[in-house]
Amino acid sequence: MGRLVEITDVILRDAHQSLLATRMAMEDMVPACEDLDNAGYWSLECWGGATFDACIRYLNEDPWERLRRFRKLLPKTRLQMLLRGQNLLGYRHYEDAVVERFVDKAAENGMDVFRVFDALNDLRNLKTAIAAVKKTGKHAQGTICYTVSPVHTNEAFVEMAQSLKDMGADSICLKDMAALLKPQAAYDLVKGIKEKCGADTLVHVHCHSTTGVTLVSLMKAIEAGCDIVDTSISSLALGSGHNPTEAMVEMLEGTGYETRLDKDRLLKVKDYFAKIRGRYREFMSEFTGVDTEIFKSQIPGGMISNMESQLKGQGAADRLHEVLEEVPRVRQDSGFPPLVTPSSQIVGTQAVFNVLMGKYKAMTGEFADLMLGYYGTTLGTKDPEVLAKAEAHAKKPVITGRPADLLKPEWDALKSEAVKLENCDGSDEDVLTVAMFPQVAPKFFKTRPQGPKNLGKDPVKGGDKKEAAPAAKPDTKPAAGGNGADPTVPVTYVVSLYGREHKVTVAQKS
Amino acid sequence: MGRLVEITDVILRDAHQSLLATRMAMEDMVPACEDLDNAGYWSLECWGGATFDACIRYLNEDPWERLRRFRKLLPKTRLQMLLRGQNLLGYRHYEDAVVERFVDKAAENGMDVFRVFDALNDLRNLKTAIAAVKKTGKHAQGTICYTVSPVHTNEAFVEMAQSLKDMGADSICLKDMAALLKPQAAYDLVKGIKEKCGADTLVHVHCHSTTGVTLVSLMKAIEAGCDIVDTSISSLALGSGHNPTEAMVEMLEGTGYETRLDKDRLLKVKDYFAKIRGRYREFMSEFTGVDTEIFKSQIPGGMISNMESQLKGQGAADRLHEVLEEVPRVRQDSGFPPLVTPSSQIVGTQAVFNVLMGKYKAMTGEFADLMLGYYGTTLGTKDPEVLAKAEAHAKKPVITGRPADLLKPEWDALKSEAVKLENCDGSDEDVLTVAMFPQVAPKFFKTRPQGPKNLGKDPVKGGDKKEAAPAAKPDTKPAAGGNGADPTVPVTYVVSLYGREHKVTVAQKS
Repeated sequence: MGRLVEITDVILRDAHQSLLATRMAMEDMVPACEDLDNAGYWSLECWGGATFDACIRYLNEDPWERLRRFRKLLPKTRLQMLLRGQNLLGYRHYEDAVVERFVDKAAENGMDVFRVFDALNDLRNLKTAIAAVKKTGKHAQGTICYTVSPVHTNEAFVEMAQSLKDMGADSICLKDMAALLKPQAAYDLVKGIKEKCGADTLVHVHCHSTTGVTLVSLMKAIEAGCDIVDTSISSLALGSGHNPTEAMVEMLEGTGYETRLDKDRLLKVKDYFAKIRGRYREFMSEFTGVDTEIFKSQIPGGMISNMESQLKGQGAADRLHEVLEEVPRVRQDSGFPPLVTPSSQIVGTQAVFNVLMGKYKAMTGEFADLMLGYYGTTLGTKDPEVLAKAEAHAKKPVITGRPADLLKPEWDALKSEAVKLENCDGSDEDVLTVAMFPQVAPKFFKTRPQGPKNLGKDPVKGGDKKEAAPAAKPDTKPAAGGNGADPTVPVTYVVSLYGREHKVTVAQKS
Repeated sequence: MGRLVEITDVILRDAHQSLLATRMAMEDMVPACEDLDNAGYWSLECWGGATFDACIRYLNEDPWERLRRFRKLLPKTRLQMLLRGQNLLGYRHYEDAVVERFVDKAAENGMDVFRVFDALNDLRNLKTAIAAVKKTGKHAQGTICYTVSPVHTNEAFVEMAQSLKDMGADSICLKDMAALLKPQAAYDLVKGIKEKCGADTLVHVHCHSTTGVTLVSLMKAIEAGCDIVDTSISSLALGSGHNPTEAMVEMLEGTGYETRLDKDRLLKVKDYFAKIRGRYREFMSEFTGVDTEIFKSQIPGGMISNMESQLKGQGAADRLHEVLEEVPRVRQDSGFPPLVTPSSQIVGTQAVFNVLMGKYKAMTGEFADLMLGYYGTTLGTKDPEVLAKAEAHAKKPVITGRPADLLKPEWDALKSEAVKLENCDGSDEDVLTVAMFPQVAPKFFKTRPQGPKNLGKDPVKGGDKKEAAPAAKPDTKPAAGGNGADPTVPVTYVVSLYGREHKVTVAQKS
């Protein structure tokens, strides 16, 4: 018997988020649950921001009901979710009592493992959520967003792991959303965490497969002592998704490490999702290969397609290359944030603006907030000139404290707004849904009684393939002044980022 | 500086053989050659049986001329080919003088590295080819076809490596055509070979990526001392193809191992073939994911689709599962041959027959030959009952000697037959083309003056996707007696395997 390596399957959340634009209906997951529950997983990831969003935006499905159904269908296995720290599943910071209420309700509805992360790795944005999870008695997983920069040293990450442990985290997750974690780095990091935090510290590694190297990284992480790894059943894996579960099981043969997964169950689940995948062809990611250019640009695939559509909207599709070169500079100016939702979109959109309109001539409100500390702090220092421009643009000061400390208690106000909505049932769950998705929830409540929609189509009869729209996608569109044909005329852009619209006026294009 | 790991790119041969049914025209490879030649590869694989076959069968392209052009276009890099030992690039054994002539001509036209293999790992089928390569002063690579069976132990493979070295092989190739080589096995085998044959023995590992684990296996092979690995540029990689070259380069960062490849050149080659790939959509393999079922069934992907079409032709598409279970039994009965061209097709077709008509009630001539030693010897012993049936069927004795020893000098006869053909130029190259592809060459010579055909299509204007036909594909079709609706009526099948047709009569279906 070798050392046991535990597996989390992301098939019910991140796999279809990464490969099918988060569109999979609960109805299409139900038939796989018995096999998944009996396969021997450490946990099944099944809930997060994009799935919650897609439920109410596209599927007319109550995400809380989805969670309760998973709980009933998966009695033997831990349910796991991805939680954006102080942002919960939304795109702004929430006041602490709202964070606590959310965690309570998620736990009450059946969640076991809360993977808590912050896009900037600002620990102050994780503190309340981790404490709240601990209070419910559930598993609090503290997360390190992996990125590569001159300031993100092995030591810095190991320190962060220790701080998460000090904060009470039951395990440490190394989250490699962009598939940047190379084998040696994986080995060194896991080794470093185990040495610093103790060999009994549970280390859980999450990698995407986009760059093609991360199954090797998982092998090296396991050799360094990693306890749990994330994979996805092979029929919904690879590309910008994850490494295949079955490949993980097979590759360990004879190595002295082994999983406890039941191969016959995995085969059934694989065959099942192979069929389901065909039903979502319309939403399927075009990208199925590997892309190692990400190592140079540091730009995740989803972000590139966002920037492409932004540029297209401005009639500047040919300038993608310039934008790709601008992103690392914007990232450096803003203190090397990891590029993950929402920082990836904020940095990417700013890079588009810099290329189209001249360096920081226009600035999104979000980028100004990022510069000024309203999302939290970054590991690197910020460029003073860009910082000054951000202050001038946003007309607000730099903050150094925890962003959520600026917030006043808001639960009562959120509740009284929510209960006014048609069909809001007044439950804490409904209030939280409104709190996190104020623009989408009202419409969802109205149509909720009609029951879930399944966007999957019979692969034979189904319609033509059309452009897949991600669950949450920022876009820019010219509001006035056309497509900027005359460079001397002022141009106003409406930038919409997660449903909030911003007008950006540029005096003169350079 | 870490230890140097050298890379062979298979983009010009095995990549498009595995993913685009070998249809890529020379014209579509030419523009990539300058970057490939300057990227820093140990060698570029560019010639082999299927590419030769496809050239004359589908592309109206002279394969010898292709080789000469590669030689001119790739002056700095070794050219590499895959040679089926005593079979050359054809599907039968050739007399030694023909083997020698072929090797001379290949070397003369520009080939540098000859990867010589035998489907049964029978060293006697490699001897003449390896000696001939040595005589030309070129690089003779002795090949071990990797497979998994009770008789294929690490020790057995290591012994084989030593025998290849004794035979004069300049390097040892571990050829994992079905992606069965798991990480620990890769480590142990390379380590074993280095220990037995000496640390200075060049070890070259070739893996397909079908099962999803073999990039990890390449990492482990490198850790064990492997000198050269095969990869393919990422835009034509993965699925039943190979691990991506760029992923190999990136994954080694910081490990103490490194390639000498130029990333900028690789990027250009990648972008180029990404465009070319689209032109061959019609021939593209449907399979882009991973398949770990191969570990259980040992059946390579291409073989499954062959068997599926055989079963379909018999109106028995629903019996694939039985056939998949029969294959390992047929393989055991025949002494555990590795499953690679042609043994994979021979074993697969016999398994189809066993399922459709009862166990060994019908036997292909090829399967009888395999049982009786006419392809060479297998590592495992053969089932005596099945052996007796093979003797009865084929009405010829078991042989234990080297199959080619039965052959009389044949060059003069081959030449006099060849020169009779319209447009045969009488060169040794033309005679060899006829010798290896007697059914295809005559038509090719006739149309050769018209020049190469490019089957690629504009991806936008191009036609609908249709079934891709592999370069060489055995198939069964009922000759008389229809689809066997009446089980008491004798049924005759015509089985065609590589252009040779066989009538198989079955007295009564069980």
